[in-house]
Amino acid sequence: MGQDQEHQDDSMVMIETNLDDMSGEWMGYVMDRLFETGAKDAFYTPIYMKKNRPAQKLSVLAKEQDLATILDLLFKETTTLGVRYYPVTCHRLERQFLKVRLPLGEVSVKVGRRDGVVVQIAPEYEECAMIARNSGIPLKQVFNQVQQAFRNQYPEWEVNKKA
Amino acid sequence: MGQDQEHQDDSMVMIETNLDDMSGEWMGYVMDRLFETGAKDAFYTPIYMKKNRPAQKLSVLAKEQDLATILDLLFKETTTLGVRYYPVTCHRLERQFLKVRLPLGEVSVKVGRRDGVVVQIAPEYEECAMIARNSGIPLKQVFNQVQQAFRNQYPEWEVNKKA
Amino acid sequence: MGQDQEHQDDSMVMIETNLDDMSGEWMGYVMDRLFETGAKDAFYTPIYMKKNRPAQKLSVLAKEQDLATILDLLFKETTTLGVRYYPVTCHRLERQFLKVRLPLGEVSVKVGRRDGVVVQIAPEYEECAMIARNSGIPLKQVFNQVQQAFRNQYPEWEVNKKA
Amino acid sequence: MGQDQEHQDDSMVMIETNLDDMSGEWMGYVMDRLFETGAKDAFYTPIYMKKNRPAQKLSVLAKEQDLATILDLLFKETTTLGVRYYPVTCHRLERQFLKVRLPLGEVSVKVGRRDGVVVQIAPEYEECAMIARNSGIPLKQVFNQVQQAFRNQYPEWEVNKKA
Amino acid sequence: MGQDQEHQDDSMVMIETNLDDMSGEWMGYVMDRLFETGAKDAFYTPIYMKKNRPAQKLSVLAKEQDLATILDLLFKETTTLGVRYYPVTCHRLERQFLKVRLPLGEVSVKVGRRDGVVVQIAPEYEECAMIARNSGIPLKQVFNQVQQAFRNQYPEWEVNKKA
Amino acid sequence: MGQDQEHQDDSMVMIETNLDDMSGEWMGYVMDRLFETGAKDAFYTPIYMKKNRPAQKLSVLAKEQDLATILDLLFKETTTLGVRYYPVTCHRLERQFLKVRLPLGEVSVKVGRRDGVVVQIAPEYEECAMIARNSGIPLKQVFNQVQQAFRNQYPEWEVNKKA
Repeated sequence: MGQDQEHQDDSMVMIETNLDDMSGEWMGYVMDRLFETGAKDAFYTPIYMKKNRPAQKLSVLAKEQDLATILDLLFKETTTLGVRYYPVTCHRLERQFLKVRLPLGEVSVKVGRRDGVVVQIAPEYEECAMIARNSGIPLKQVFNQVQQAFRNQYPEWEVNKKA
Repeated sequence: MGQDQEHQDDSMVMIETNLDDMSGEWMGYVMDRLFETGAKDAFYTPIYMKKNRPAQKLSVLAKEQDLATILDLLFKETTTLGVRYYPVTCHRLERQFLKVRLPLGEVSVKVGRRDGVVVQIAPEYEECAMIARNSGIPLKQVFNQVQQAFRNQYPEWEVNKKA
Repeated sequence: MGQDQEHQDDSMVMIETNLDDMSGEWMGYVMDRLFETGAKDAFYTPIYMKKNRPAQKLSVLAKEQDLATILDLLFKETTTLGVRYYPVTCHRLERQFLKVRLPLGEVSVKVGRRDGVVVQIAPEYEECAMIARNSGIPLKQVFNQVQQAFRNQYPEWEVNKKA
Repeated sequence: MGQDQEHQDDSMVMIETNLDDMSGEWMGYVMDRLFETGAKDAFYTPIYMKKNRPAQKLSVLAKEQDLATILDLLFKETTTLGVRYYPVTCHRLERQFLKVRLPLGEVSVKVGRRDGVVVQIAPEYEECAMIARNSGIPLKQVFNQVQQAFRNQYPEWEVNKKA
Repeated sequence: MGQDQEHQDDSMVMIETNLDDMSGEWMGYVMDRLFETGAKDAFYTPIYMKKNRPAQKLSVLAKEQDLATILDLLFKETTTLGVRYYPVTCHRLERQFLKVRLPLGEVSVKVGRRDGVVVQIAPEYEECAMIARNSGIPLKQVFNQVQQAFRNQYPEWEVNKKA
Repeated sequence: MGQDQEHQDDSMVMIETNLDDMSGEWMGYVMDRLFETGAKDAFYTPIYMKKNRPAQKLSVLAKEQDLATILDLLFKETTTLGVRYYPVTCHRLERQFLKVRLPLGEVSVKVGRRDGVVVQIAPEYEECAMIARNSGIPLKQVFNQVQQAFRNQYPEWEVNKKA
């Protein structure tokens, strides 16, 4: 049962580069490698560049101390000749993981609190997906069952309530 | 007839969060609520996240002093567990609203000036849309009529001229 | 002064292919070549494919009789191994080109009519862009001047009126 | 309490047009007008056209018998000079609306069945949004309360079960 | 060493549905399940729907004979209440797989021919990615090495030549 | 044969504005003008704004010293009444241009080095495109020939090697 306090983190950096001369096929690989190398988040945004080029902007959210490592990876694994970045502040909720028992298995639920008040209740995707895959039950139904079971097992954890 | 001087505003902040576990249906509601809560602008950008997830980045432009209020809303109304932000400077044109008379009603026109020179002439959408809706005249034609009437009533307000 | 009657064309085909292993750089070139080879329209749509691949769907609208030529080009100039297509019907307005005189030069205006009623009045982009570029006047202002001059020279061509 | 049988509808048509010379501001208006005029669905897709033009594809799903009316609207309210369309078959689930009582008001829930088996349970957005707005409770929480109340009031309507 | 003749396939169907009330998280799962269930291709397109809803269009390319199975999956695993589809013709190149030996391992290369002329030479992504991952060599460099080795081992297979 | 050292540039600024009341047609023109006026990069991102408006975010990367000039252009050539910007740091690779001889002509190849190690080898698009256009050889094949010729003429310039 992990726990993180709500906090504000000023030591983050957003790293961006525009990719207009690289195969989309390689972009999935780059994303995997970024997470392995310490990126906190990574995503692609479709953009339109000069000379009628559809392209992708790659955005990587990382700790400032990991900047050099991420740049290394970007220069090795993408085709870019230049990367830009700027500091960002991250505000993260207090997070707590609770276990929910279902007939089909146990699932973690992430609870997010702001100023002590529950605002998010999020079943873990990977665990729900595994149950869905093994049982043949639709994933959306597994999520619903987890949320229902959560309410029964943890009635005190209710959205909009101090808990 | 409001008026704002051309100015540079250093006290703005861009707030962003990636939404990959939230219904699109709720996003329209969140946008409405953001404007009611003091956001100066809000928009969605389609992005692609890990694990093959199409998602949306929500961007909110707000005054620094409204940051906490916007964060409150985002944590309550979206499913996010973390939000990031960074300061931006806004450069806004001098704005003046002038009234234009049409046979079908009166319409406001926003005039934007840079260094005293007119650069934008923009009929107010809501007023044009109401006339279009009531009269059955296509909206694009209402806009054209407003622009034409504006030139007749305010010949001194010409794009590229000091006024 | 060209003219085309309003008509319905059942002999058109929409050709599509998904590109996830091709440089964006080459896509601009492919678009140019498609128009030279007889495509009536061509455009890219950002899509998201398996294995976390951001990609582009290339859509080509062509006459059925040009299908083989377009396929040739797509297989030569893109990296695709398969292309799909389906018949579409095109409904096109009656089009007439009229010349408008400006102090800075002459510009063509495309007029579109549905059942004899004017519904579109569109200055030709390339001619407006050339005037804007040569004169230093903003393009948006050139368009406005053309529309204003059009109303003066052709008062009988009014949107929503038979003409 | 409406009800529709599961069925296949061969008399539908998808109407599309690319808009590269029209203000985004007008596109919201066009969407509203399309639904008022009988469109079954309408949506915009960001595309990229020749000459470095970001644009929008407007797609309208309509009954074949409404084709002419929709074309009329598109030619009047957009800037297009040509529209394309092709027949599509729609497969729609059996739909039934059930009322759910909450402390804050009553909400309709749409139930979708395939071959008699419940596959969808969808609270009506507009009704949930009104409750959220009036009560100040987050919309996502209203949806959850409706789903929970639905399970209590209609235990026989369970996803994956004949009902 | 598989081989497929160049051919035209008239028995394909494009199935589409717009998703505006479903978590992006589930969409990656749906894509995996679609390929397992026989879909020939599946992809998401960002779209904009009514009521300010950013959404995704899910497109599935399948054999006509698999239509019912795909519909079953879509109704179970997505939140849709209606799906549309239309027939498409697929034109596929002749495909042949050749093995290329690298110091780091063997890689398959897909060769595509149109009218007997080589037009595509595509190293298999999964095999290149595994070599890249195991060796630490950038993926883009692995692809280049495969293409170079291919030219040495199969000099007769040259793009634009009969082979 | 130009050369630039690898460096970090703290004097760059990212300038952004959302365009929801401007024709896509004009956006291509604005992009050309931006590059002529000193922008280091410029691109469009499809976004979704309030009141159901599909729109484009225009992003311009420029030197801080060029900020006023770029703002001038944006206010003149777009319809915006406000622009925002924030400082970014750019990290650029060492760049060197080498000439490669092909039977069809000479092509420049840009080589990028990080800490003295070659990481990028990129044929110049415009020169490859001209050869492709004049010879009728597919552009993708021209790129491949250039890369092959580069390896033969400059064996010491190898990706992942000090050079």
